[in-house]
Amino acid sequence: MSNEKLIGIMGGVGPYAGLDLVRKIFDQTKAITDQEHLPVALLSLPDQIPDRTAFLLGQTNTNPADAICDVLMKLEQLGATVAGIPCNTAHCAPIFEAVREQLEQAHCTIRLLHMIEEVALFIAQTYPSLNNFGVLSTTGTYRTRLYPSILGQHGYNVVEPNDATQLRTHATIYHPDYGIKAQSNPVSQIAQQELIEVVKELKKNGAEAIIAGCTEIALAIPSATIADLPVIDPTLVLARALIREFRPDKLRNHNPEQPSL
Amino acid sequence: MSNEKLIGIMGGVGPYAGLDLVRKIFDQTKAITDQEHLPVALLSLPDQIPDRTAFLLGQTNTNPADAICDVLMKLEQLGATVAGIPCNTAHCAPIFEAVREQLEQAHCTIRLLHMIEEVALFIAQTYPSLNNFGVLSTTGTYRTRLYPSILGQHGYNVVEPNDATQLRTHATIYHPDYGIKAQSNPVSQIAQQELIEVVKELKKNGAEAIIAGCTEIALAIPSATIADLPVIDPTLVLARALIREFRPDKLRNHNPEQPSL
Repeated sequence: MSNEKLIGIMGGVGPYAGLDLVRKIFDQTKAITDQEHLPVALLSLPDQIPDRTAFLLGQTNTNPADAICDVLMKLEQLGATVAGIPCNTAHCAPIFEAVREQLEQAHCTIRLLHMIEEVALFIAQTYPSLNNFGVLSTTGTYRTRLYPSILGQHGYNVVEPNDATQLRTHATIYHPDYGIKAQSNPVSQIAQQELIEVVKELKKNGAEAIIAGCTEIALAIPSATIADLPVIDPTLVLARALIREFRPDKLRNHNPEQPSL
Repeated sequence: MSNEKLIGIMGGVGPYAGLDLVRKIFDQTKAITDQEHLPVALLSLPDQIPDRTAFLLGQTNTNPADAICDVLMKLEQLGATVAGIPCNTAHCAPIFEAVREQLEQAHCTIRLLHMIEEVALFIAQTYPSLNNFGVLSTTGTYRTRLYPSILGQHGYNVVEPNDATQLRTHATIYHPDYGIKAQSNPVSQIAQQELIEVVKELKKNGAEAIIAGCTEIALAIPSATIADLPVIDPTLVLARALIREFRPDKLRNHNPEQPSL
């Protein structure tokens, strides 16, 4: 068994987002017995990985890339040939490019997927007629313009929130009382209501679909639509991409009616 | 980071039960930031681990203990000091004793908890006035008398189903159409209704509480009561025991009103 290939999940960012990704891999796999499911390793070491947003906002100089690389190399030792990081903020260039560089220097051959690139591919396939997307994200992701830059390269427009609206979104994730990181199961009523208000504003400003651009938010609004806009879940997109890379024959057909989207 | 201690989960038996255990560890941990959560490694390698019930019923000679040991030793290499197996059937003596023996021979020092022993401890603390327990389990677990023998050592009585009732319970787990292993998210209406009928019968025969003695069943009936009987969830009990062994200061107070029990 020591050389069995598997899918590696760089978890802990946050812990529930790691679980959500693994669950979506299982949900999207063609399997009716335990043995037909794909081999997956989840390393959830949150105490080792500094906060991504704090680094991007300059509140700390410690780039979480170092710790992320350590975990990815452990996953490779376990047999992972492909890996994903269920955290949008970790895909911002100052972190993600440092991860890729360090992996290359260490001759790590794991295939690390880029969740936001995968979202752009998914949009092209699933919503070919839409052009304007609202993004719910942390302020770290917002300030680095992660979604506008990558979606822009694919010809899409991101409907930007103003600073006050962005603050409200960020609070639904990080607020010590009602934020999703503090209260995940179940998510607080306040966080859910605040997200609906933010979506209504983005819709008024032209958004045709919403990207749940923080893996914690995908947990808070697992519904297929919000304020009548379709919701794109990057965690689900990443789950499907990992299966596609590892065992494409095991990938279920995409069903946009599923409540998980 | 290479020597960081962590909690190891021998997953894949079945895949969703492994996720459920990790989620319950997170839920039962005192934490409001990502970094405050405990380090956990989940190895879900279902294709490597033969069906536990098939071995116990003599349908195959391959003891899943060998594969389980391999995974536990990988978890130890990752830094796991304590581990759990979220599968009741794997705790039957012909499997679990073989696992313990092989670990000892390999000088593996991981502390492997026994989920059913933990259930007996939990009952003593939480339901000191109850004596008669109904158990919902696979036919493998049923035939090896796992619960009657261990609970019996602690002075408790297990209300046994008749063979026909046991068959119905087993089908809610293994049936290729409506069984929980084939349809986990969401669990089928048929499986849920069948389980309620079985519980009503056990209650009629004297059961004062129900043990969800298959980790897949804990997923199907996450409610605190069924047919007015309290439900004991061995996955939750194991999650709390793993935290207690790893970092007792991080264990939340037990709240029997939580819907997860």
